[in-house]
Amino acid sequence: MARDLPYADGDVRLHGRFFRDETHDTPRPGVLLIHGGAGLDDHARDQARRYAELGYAVLACDMFGEGVRGDRERTIATIMAMRDDPGRLVRRAQAGLDALAQCPETGAGRAAVGFCFGGMAALTLARSGADLAGAVSVHGSLATTRPAGTGAVKAKILVCHGAVDPHVPMDDVVAFAEEMTNADADWQLAVYGRARHGFTHRDAAPGSDGVAYDQPADERSFAAIGTFLAEALNPGRG
Amino acid sequence: MARDLPYADGDVRLHGRFFRDETHDTPRPGVLLIHGGAGLDDHARDQARRYAELGYAVLACDMFGEGVRGDRERTIATIMAMRDDPGRLVRRAQAGLDALAQCPETGAGRAAVGFCFGGMAALTLARSGADLAGAVSVHGSLATTRPAGTGAVKAKILVCHGAVDPHVPMDDVVAFAEEMTNADADWQLAVYGRARHGFTHRDAAPGSDGVAYDQPADERSFAAIGTFLAEALNPGRG
Repeated sequence: MARDLPYADGDVRLHGRFFRDETHDTPRPGVLLIHGGAGLDDHARDQARRYAELGYAVLACDMFGEGVRGDRERTIATIMAMRDDPGRLVRRAQAGLDALAQCPETGAGRAAVGFCFGGMAALTLARSGADLAGAVSVHGSLATTRPAGTGAVKAKILVCHGAVDPHVPMDDVVAFAEEMTNADADWQLAVYGRARHGFTHRDAAPGSDGVAYDQPADERSFAAIGTFLAEALNPGRG
Repeated sequence: MARDLPYADGDVRLHGRFFRDETHDTPRPGVLLIHGGAGLDDHARDQARRYAELGYAVLACDMFGEGVRGDRERTIATIMAMRDDPGRLVRRAQAGLDALAQCPETGAGRAAVGFCFGGMAALTLARSGADLAGAVSVHGSLATTRPAGTGAVKAKILVCHGAVDPHVPMDDVVAFAEEMTNADADWQLAVYGRARHGFTHRDAAPGSDGVAYDQPADERSFAAIGTFLAEALNPGRG
């Protein structure tokens, strides 16, 4: 089951899409599915459906707003503005969490799962101390100008990283590990050998942009995230 | 079901213990369970039972031989000799794999799962090009004087590492990642935040030796290894 879900962040109108598996007729824990740099596209919708099939109420949220997706300059400007102002990014993602919470199909427990840009967004939410049970970054950037303070992160964290992702070098992974340890967060990192950037994008052939689909990394990360969400959200009690 | 399994590496008599879950009456893929630096002890037997309950034929092997376990000096000398001569370590582990293969309960497919010293042993086996479907290191050391050559590693690799393990610093993790990438191995790394060395040892209270039980890391690594073995050994076809 899927339906459009319009919502807003202040004056900015946002157009999400909500997914839930038909086989569940009681409220389910919610997953905010955060798209990558291309905006709310087929990849994000496919991923949202995949997580809905695990038994979650999933909002494929819209971080960009009207008129951005498909416009390269506005997309870059929008991403830069949120990257440089984490508060803005958090407010935008929080609007999605609020919209998700208001769906009658959504029960207790909330997690965020993001890809590329969305992975950074999920981690930024977690660093801000958002009330989340879990935050997952899949081939997302790990660097931050505002590292989490000690005790700030309430969410359990899972990062799924491609070992040969040219956009997220091992130095960033090491710095992230230090950040999470210093913050005393409950965090996990999964590194997938042979995997480049964007390893969940089925239609991405290896190219000069460093992005390539990697089926083992896609399947292994999906399994790991499923296990992680089951622990964080405990849907059996839902 | 468990029974003693005596075997040998040349002149050295070895005393393993074999485990299999009673509910399976057909041959099952084999797991070589490699103990840590203390030798074949309760921890190794408990872990072997745990993996047998997943449906594998498990040999808790004996890497030390008679008269070593409990003798601190001989234990250190035995470990040093195998660490400095990977060929010796490989022969000793291979003797266990052969003994496992000869059990009538063991079907097709072989993996090695090792802890601490045993993790190093599992990786050394894999680096040697041993005929293994999978090799798992749990809080094992990752450094090597003989990095794997390109294409040498046949086994899928999983390393489960505690983020604050003082015996395996992040530099070693980074070097291991580079080694595996250069070898073009099919590898994965799971890092568990907050976990120190020996995080699967239930009776280890935090102390000056850097070893401490960590229940989340224990449970998460067991789940990850279960998923990994299911992919590598495909027991459903057994």
